[in-house]
Amino acid sequence: MAASWSELMLSKLVGRCNNFFQPGSSRAMCKPFMVGDQQVGWVWPGVEKHIQRFPDVFMVEDKQVSLCPSLQMYEERTARVQEVMVKLREEGEFIALKGWRDEMYEVFHQRSSPPVFRMERTATALLGVKQYGVHVNGYVEHPQKGPLMWIGRRAKNKSTYPGKLDQVTAGGFTAGLTAQEVLVKECAEEANIPQDIALTAQPAGAISYFYEDERGLFPEIQFVFDLKLPLDFQPVNTDGEVSEFYLWDMDKVKEQIAQPDFKPNCAMVVLDFLIRHGHIHPDQEPRYLQFLENLHKTLF
Amino acid sequence: MAASWSELMLSKLVGRCNNFFQPGSSRAMCKPFMVGDQQVGWVWPGVEKHIQRFPDVFMVEDKQVSLCPSLQMYEERTARVQEVMVKLREEGEFIALKGWRDEMYEVFHQRSSPPVFRMERTATALLGVKQYGVHVNGYVEHPQKGPLMWIGRRAKNKSTYPGKLDQVTAGGFTAGLTAQEVLVKECAEEANIPQDIALTAQPAGAISYFYEDERGLFPEIQFVFDLKLPLDFQPVNTDGEVSEFYLWDMDKVKEQIAQPDFKPNCAMVVLDFLIRHGHIHPDQEPRYLQFLENLHKTLF
Repeated sequence: MAASWSELMLSKLVGRCNNFFQPGSSRAMCKPFMVGDQQVGWVWPGVEKHIQRFPDVFMVEDKQVSLCPSLQMYEERTARVQEVMVKLREEGEFIALKGWRDEMYEVFHQRSSPPVFRMERTATALLGVKQYGVHVNGYVEHPQKGPLMWIGRRAKNKSTYPGKLDQVTAGGFTAGLTAQEVLVKECAEEANIPQDIALTAQPAGAISYFYEDERGLFPEIQFVFDLKLPLDFQPVNTDGEVSEFYLWDMDKVKEQIAQPDFKPNCAMVVLDFLIRHGHIHPDQEPRYLQFLENLHKTLF
Repeated sequence: MAASWSELMLSKLVGRCNNFFQPGSSRAMCKPFMVGDQQVGWVWPGVEKHIQRFPDVFMVEDKQVSLCPSLQMYEERTARVQEVMVKLREEGEFIALKGWRDEMYEVFHQRSSPPVFRMERTATALLGVKQYGVHVNGYVEHPQKGPLMWIGRRAKNKSTYPGKLDQVTAGGFTAGLTAQEVLVKECAEEANIPQDIALTAQPAGAISYFYEDERGLFPEIQFVFDLKLPLDFQPVNTDGEVSEFYLWDMDKVKEQIAQPDFKPNCAMVVLDFLIRHGHIHPDQEPRYLQFLENLHKTLF
């Protein structure tokens, strides 16, 4: 039983969350996407074919695809890339662009330096650009039952992973916001957590992984926060994105994250929590180091 | 001041703890060391030159060095590799072998499967074999001062990193022991922490990094434990390996780990603790993600 949980969990981490690194992925066919002399993404052949029609925005070469060197300024790069993406969206070729959100994400060389341009969130998958987000483990310390965790079920009408299990709240990094601002905003919208409680959340690291699916490439980094909620607090969804909340003990949570019902990257966030809080022991879990390796992939 | 701490810390992580991945390292000249069809280490040219004199133990080829395929059994592999290392030690060529410890380390394909052979601890650096250890963050929750951490100073006569700052206790994985057994043993020897307290230590993950120095190659994985000590507990060294213990607040600890006085891999263990416990915030620390990337390198 224990072995079977370990293998299910590992297979999710390797085969879903990090399938870009697996044999048979599109990796060997992708070209690095460069801004200046630094890689900021990956371009797969299906995208390359289309963006080479815009040679004053994208320069397609044998070994790489670059943003045209003539585009030097943040606003100009943003405007020209956006024109291309709007055009591609109208042409209707790409599944990713059908989920257009009118939400801008920033593209960085390093997150410690200013962004080099910004682009529509759903279009990042076409250029294999890193996406950043904030995930919150909402838990309570029950005097009798021990630690319990709040788990949300995504609404059936969400465009991605409808009906799957998820953190109590999580959100992507809209351009210009800090991690704390994303956290406070998502706590309010997704679970009705008041700001004074949200601000007690403790940063606890980040996970990084790289998957691909029919929409494109997803190199992602999620900043992880632990939020201890009051015993009597009941999360309530206010934006229609969550259909239900459950309060489960750690055994139940652990069992569930290995199942197909749990959104893969959210399962990783919980796994990281379980490891950090001592709920998984290296002497009892044969896949301990492989779990950690897959929670912390170097993306590019 | 904050920026300067970040750059010092990052430079230690990149330039010391992970210098094998840096330009100018011996990496480009090393050959994978194989047991069967799986890599278990790296061989650098200075070692290759010597071990090719033992063709019935090591098979040196253009692209790799392998343990001879005729050596199929754990005990036979162990005995033959040990003969070579004893011989090399007698010849006195290698600094690493001058620190001979008569302590056996296991060599794994994956730590989740049985070891493929075992070898003298100090000789692992010659074959670039992964070393595993257990590091313990010993801390107290002070009612007025908040969290404080016990830091040890290594004895001046230690063969490695004499006089440097270190965890309250840490130790390598002697063949056949579990992480918990290593922990209990080192807690007793290095800090006189009784077994009943040692057993309350919580596993909290692992860090992985790869450095090289004049002794050889060090791909290392340290299992990390957090041990909350009683307020009135005073660690006392019993094996002569620690000269002094300090109890510092988190600001002082954070400041010190970036300094040359702090043993590099022990500084990483503390940095991981500071990140996991929310003492470093992603919105305030520009190098947050680079710290994490360097705490969790995929070794091979």
